[in-house]
This record gives sequence, structure tokens and C-alpha cells, in this order.
Amino acid sequence: MKIGVLGTGNVGKALAAGWAAAGHDVVFGSRRADDAELRAELVTAVGGEVAVADPAGAVAAAEVVVNATPGTASVPLLETVGASALAGKVVLDVAVGFREDNSLSHLVESLGEEIQRTFPEARVVKTLCTIDSTVMIAPDSLEGPSTLFLSGDDADAKRTVSGLLHDLGWPPEALLDLGGIGTARGQEHYSLMFIALAGALKSYGFSVKVVRPATS
Amino acid sequence: MKIGVLGTGNVGKALAAGWAAAGHDVVFGSRRADDAELRAELVTAVGGEVAVADPAGAVAAAEVVVNATPGTASVPLLETVGASALAGKVVLDVAVGFREDNSLSHLVESLGEEIQRTFPEARVVKTLCTIDSTVMIAPDSLEGPSTLFLSGDDADAKRTVSGLLHDLGWPPEALLDLGGIGTARGQEHYSLMFIALAGALKSYGFSVKVVRPATS
Repeated sequence: MKIGVLGTGNVGKALAAGWAAAGHDVVFGSRRADDAELRAELVTAVGGEVAVADPAGAVAAAEVVVNATPGTASVPLLETVGASALAGKVVLDVAVGFREDNSLSHLVESLGEEIQRTFPEARVVKTLCTIDSTVMIAPDSLEGPSTLFLSGDDADAKRTVSGLLHDLGWPPEALLDLGGIGTARGQEHYSLMFIALAGALKSYGFSVKVVRPATS
Repeated sequence: MKIGVLGTGNVGKALAAGWAAAGHDVVFGSRRADDAELRAELVTAVGGEVAVADPAGAVAAAEVVVNATPGTASVPLLETVGASALAGKVVLDVAVGFREDNSLSHLVESLGEEIQRTFPEARVVKTLCTIDSTVMIAPDSLEGPSTLFLSGDDADAKRTVSGLLHDLGWPPEALLDLGGIGTARGQEHYSLMFIALAGALKSYGFSVKVVRPATS
């Protein structure tokens, strides 16, 4: 698939590397697309040549747009791309908005919902925001299976995203569809638990597994 | 131990039953202590005679005070008991504040932190708020082990609470100390994930397990 990755931080780099390794056609979208240093950094991250365009260019080329920008900047950045450019695209939204004091920027409506509301014709799927970038592309690095969550209103988009998650190493049984995009609230608020856990474990290399009732 | 349980909803009833079965001396604290119907209900829940007092009476008699009141009402209720009555007591805080629309009442500072700040000499430990009352007293009802979280500033109080959790069936390896009471924020915000999961699983009978890095 043609995947446009908006955001060139740890998350964008890790996901681009993971999907490039799985044979997908990745293009980074960045406002610093002409920055030679950034390009060199992205080539190193992906482990080979990689396309870099401005955000609008990356979106235009992509079937799936990955929002790996800082959550407090995501909507303004997507607005520069424009609603019509995003119409019909799958938007895989990984971002969570944090203020400088580590509190959430989106306390009532989640960022995932705000993106869906602002770009009603985009097909937003929230996922991957409950784990560190290192775990996103190496689910087997943990002591056992864990759970990855999906929230979105469009079933087809969730199927597409599920396929891309499989390509990163997440087996079907690891994926849990929480429901509509309103459930992104659960994933995003979990970030505060993630921060508490990271502090206690002194590591970002962890995840959680949903433990269901025993079948009798 | 002498345990005062504030709150006579599902959580208060389940915990009182669990600790009474483990041999602890439980007294409910309720503003409806004289209500015969409530008393009958509590006897049924606990499966035998049980003491019921007003909140101040229950706190006075207790070594450990359990806050199982609705999170939006907890601080006003505890204020009727008073800071001096709570001084030195272990306060095991289970409550989460929900508004009618299922959003959190405590979005920045957690309820656990507010209780600790309002009653600085109480020894607040936040725990048990990530699971349903049915799972609190039956951790083995799930398909495998899960994780229970503790947040609090007082190490001794956390040890006392850990002992009470063991008495409900939670083994030591299930307990994860997140750190100070500030980490209650993680546990309380997780509630929105809990709600999303309950909707997806069509059940409240679940928990999560923290999955750590594989040891190489």
C-alpha cells in the first residue's frame, strides 16, 4: 500500500521502517521536506532510500495517511492539507496530545474524535497509541502477547488498518476493536496510565493484555 | 483488621463481603444507617450480621477506611467526617468520579490526589478502581492473572493495603506499585478505557495484565 506518514519523530520513523520492511511504499510528509539533515535521518531510520514530501504531497500520494504528529499540532497541520485532500482516505491516527506538564490536551472529546469531526469524509482509525514506538514494530519483544486497540466508525478502514498492523507483527488475536471513534477517548486517556507505568517500570517497553473471563 | 466501608453500592458490598469472609471486622458507614431496608440488603450482601454506623462512626471504629462512595460525592462526604478523624488512618480509595455523560469529573488532579490534599494526615492509597466489583473479590474468575495497581505516598499504608488485597485473592505478583498518589491519575483516567472495553466485550468481567519485556 501507499502509506503517507505525517510526523518524523520516533513514532513516524518506527512505523515507516516497519511498513517499508513489509514491502509497503512509504512517503514521509514534513514541512521540512527540503532539509537535507532530516532526509539523512529518515534514510537511516528506514534503512534505505525513502521519499519525503511536504504534508500535502505525502497525503496526495497515499492510500493510508498516518498521523504521527504531536497531538497538540495535529489538527492545524491536517488543516493545511485540507479536508478535500483527506476525503475518503484512511487516517491511521496514533497521536495523543500532551501539554508540557504531561496532562492531556484533549480531556473531553478525544483527538481522534476531533480529527473525525473536522474532516468528516476522512476514515479515521485510532490505534497504536497505547504503546511505545519500539513495541509498535516488535510486539514479540515482550514476555507474552498483548492487546492492541482500534477505534473508528468505518469498518473497511479498520480492516485496512488491521492488515497494516499484522504487517508489523501483530497477530489477529491481538487486535481488539473497541467500536466507534468515540472509544478513542479510552485509548487516549490510557496514556496517563502508560506514563505512570513507564515511571514504575523504568521502561517504555511494555504493553497490556486484556484478560477476559475464564471459559467454564 | 477493623475496616470501615464508606459506600453501600456494589463496590462497598463486594469488598465488605470479601473482607468479612477473610475474617476482618467490617463496619459500613452510611448516612442511611438507620434504614432497615438498607441494613437487610447489607446483611444479604455480606452473608451474615454486619455493623452499620454513620460515616463518622464507621471511621472512628476503623483502622482502614475504604472510600467506595460515588467519586463526585467523596470529598464532601469525607468532609462531614472531618480531617482530624481521618488523621493517621489508611484511606483505601476505590472511587472514580463520573459525570452523567460518563466523562470524568476529575480531569486534571485525580480524586485520589484531591482526597490526599484535602486530608493531608490521612494515608491515601488508590487501588481497585480498574476493575469491576465482581472481579475485585474473584481475581481467579478470569482466564489468567491480571495486574492490580497501587498509588500512594505512604509505604506503610501501601503494605497494609497490599495485605488486604491478598486477602481478596490477589497474589503479591499481581500487585504493581505505581508510585506516589500523583499516579492515581493513571488509574482514574484508565476508567475511560475500562468503559470502552466493557462496551466492546459486553461484560464487566475483565482486567488487564501488564506485559513486560521478554527477559533474554
